[in-house]
Amino acid sequence: MVTIRDVAREAGVSVATVSRVLNKSGYVQEDTKKLVLEVIQKLNYKPNEVARSLYKRESKLIGLLLPDITNPFFPELARGVEDAVQNEGYRLIVGNSDEDMEKEFRYIETFLQNHVMGIIASTIHSDRFLNLKIPVVLLDRTTDQFPSVYSNHQQGGRLAARTLLERGSREITVLRGPQHIRPAQERFLAALDVLSQSSACFYVMDTSFTFNGAKASVKEVFQKYPKTDGILACNDVVATAVLHEALRIGKRIPEDLQIIGYDDVPISELVFPPLTTIHQPAYKMGEEAAKLLLAILRKEKCMDTQIKLPVKLIERETTRKVES
Amino acid sequence: MVTIRDVAREAGVSVATVSRVLNKSGYVQEDTKKLVLEVIQKLNYKPNEVARSLYKRESKLIGLLLPDITNPFFPELARGVEDAVQNEGYRLIVGNSDEDMEKEFRYIETFLQNHVMGIIASTIHSDRFLNLKIPVVLLDRTTDQFPSVYSNHQQGGRLAARTLLERGSREITVLRGPQHIRPAQERFLAALDVLSQSSACFYVMDTSFTFNGAKASVKEVFQKYPKTDGILACNDVVATAVLHEALRIGKRIPEDLQIIGYDDVPISELVFPPLTTIHQPAYKMGEEAAKLLLAILRKEKCMDTQIKLPVKLIERETTRKVES
Repeated sequence: MVTIRDVAREAGVSVATVSRVLNKSGYVQEDTKKLVLEVIQKLNYKPNEVARSLYKRESKLIGLLLPDITNPFFPELARGVEDAVQNEGYRLIVGNSDEDMEKEFRYIETFLQNHVMGIIASTIHSDRFLNLKIPVVLLDRTTDQFPSVYSNHQQGGRLAARTLLERGSREITVLRGPQHIRPAQERFLAALDVLSQSSACFYVMDTSFTFNGAKASVKEVFQKYPKTDGILACNDVVATAVLHEALRIGKRIPEDLQIIGYDDVPISELVFPPLTTIHQPAYKMGEEAAKLLLAILRKEKCMDTQIKLPVKLIERETTRKVES
Repeated sequence: MVTIRDVAREAGVSVATVSRVLNKSGYVQEDTKKLVLEVIQKLNYKPNEVARSLYKRESKLIGLLLPDITNPFFPELARGVEDAVQNEGYRLIVGNSDEDMEKEFRYIETFLQNHVMGIIASTIHSDRFLNLKIPVVLLDRTTDQFPSVYSNHQQGGRLAARTLLERGSREITVLRGPQHIRPAQERFLAALDVLSQSSACFYVMDTSFTFNGAKASVKEVFQKYPKTDGILACNDVVATAVLHEALRIGKRIPEDLQIIGYDDVPISELVFPPLTTIHQPAYKMGEEAAKLLLAILRKEKCMDTQIKLPVKLIERETTRKVES
């Protein structure tokens, strides 16, 4: 490997001079500079990025902390982040925390030890975030302390509830997601607000976010509330579990039962019948979080540090056409 | 931030002494060592991992190069890698190449500049891999030059074809995946081998690996070969596109048409009817690739550097029960 010393020796100058040329700092005579650049080219010397980052106290790395990439909402989100940072020459160190405080803590420590320039996090259980000296942007999560990019769950929850009501459901079951996941609770409360102002009756049942986790709660729904004619699921994976159980016990969809999901992950159009759902712009959310972090790193002023993106209804075949 | 100089000053020793204590190298008097360790604790000094890695010419980073994390086969694979390397204190820099040589090349360069200890790659288009001084393990890809972890596509292709034949399909359409993806071609050829030795007739059609890309080819299948009664898809996403089109035009599944997928990604049990498919052990593949790379880094001897994992048939509802 060619080192800065080899370049200095070959050019007959000091290491400090080569360093000044590389960093475009300090005075170097024009002809010396030209000579150094020629030697660099001749020896095919590549400045060591890590050494330089150490010297300049910066790296081209960003830490991305996710709950779990195997949850189908997160791959799109992660691609959005990656594609946006790579445009500016940054790379990602990625970690999945499984919403585990200990894992999260350990990832933050190694992010710091690798001199990441900033962190984008979709999981914040650890207090370790509070006293960092590098910027943190939350993605699909919010607290008052940090810049955040998220989608409008109030709008989403309301839209989901109104969709079922407008299309004629009168006994609606709301499947509430995990209570420690704030976006899930926000849309749940917004849906509840709309339902409680309507004349429809409604039930609430807790579920996990996973297919196998939701299976049991879904069976219980149809046993406890056999006349339920509309189900508002906390995400698309849970909506799919509802779909399976409903078809298994012979419900006609959407005639007997309407179902609405949340997220619009790829599976939602692959199940049969395809799911009506609330679309979150996952890729764009990732992209916006990356752009926000990069803007903070460039110390740009006057930017909006709370970015709330709109959601929209995707009508497929688990809801009836609206009566006009 | 506390530096090694602060520790040296506080302990009244030289920086070199603190360094010897940290690196457990060279002679340091017992009481000096004790003092240095006490000061380290008192000041809460954390040795800078990057600086140390530079000094020792090693880091705790591994590069993971994927084609595209939004292809549902890869999140499980990536988690397998991550969980296994993190057990030994390593972290991943992750990049998606989109099978683009240029992107791949750039990722390798930045992996090197960040002193990764090794690379795990599921995409190898760039010649840049050939002259690296760090170990490379291929994952779900194979060439003769590199250690590889992959699943048995000969077995998988044969199993898929035999499954359709044994359950009575007589006019089978084989959907061949992208020709530059070697695992797809291996299972295709293995399936062809079984079919050509049977009395069934068969057709071949090219498709992409994506849902939207496969839609058009799938329509064409039913127009060109209306009597096809068995479809062997190149992956589960394409099998799902077949399922949709078949249901749309009124085929009964599996009575009129049997479908078999490949991979056993999460969607395959979420579609309706759930897909019969060939299961690749994605998480385990990732785990084995990580273990193999770590073993190479530890310079272990006598290990198997070509790891072929078995696949298995997952019978769900798009194939008929075997006639006994």
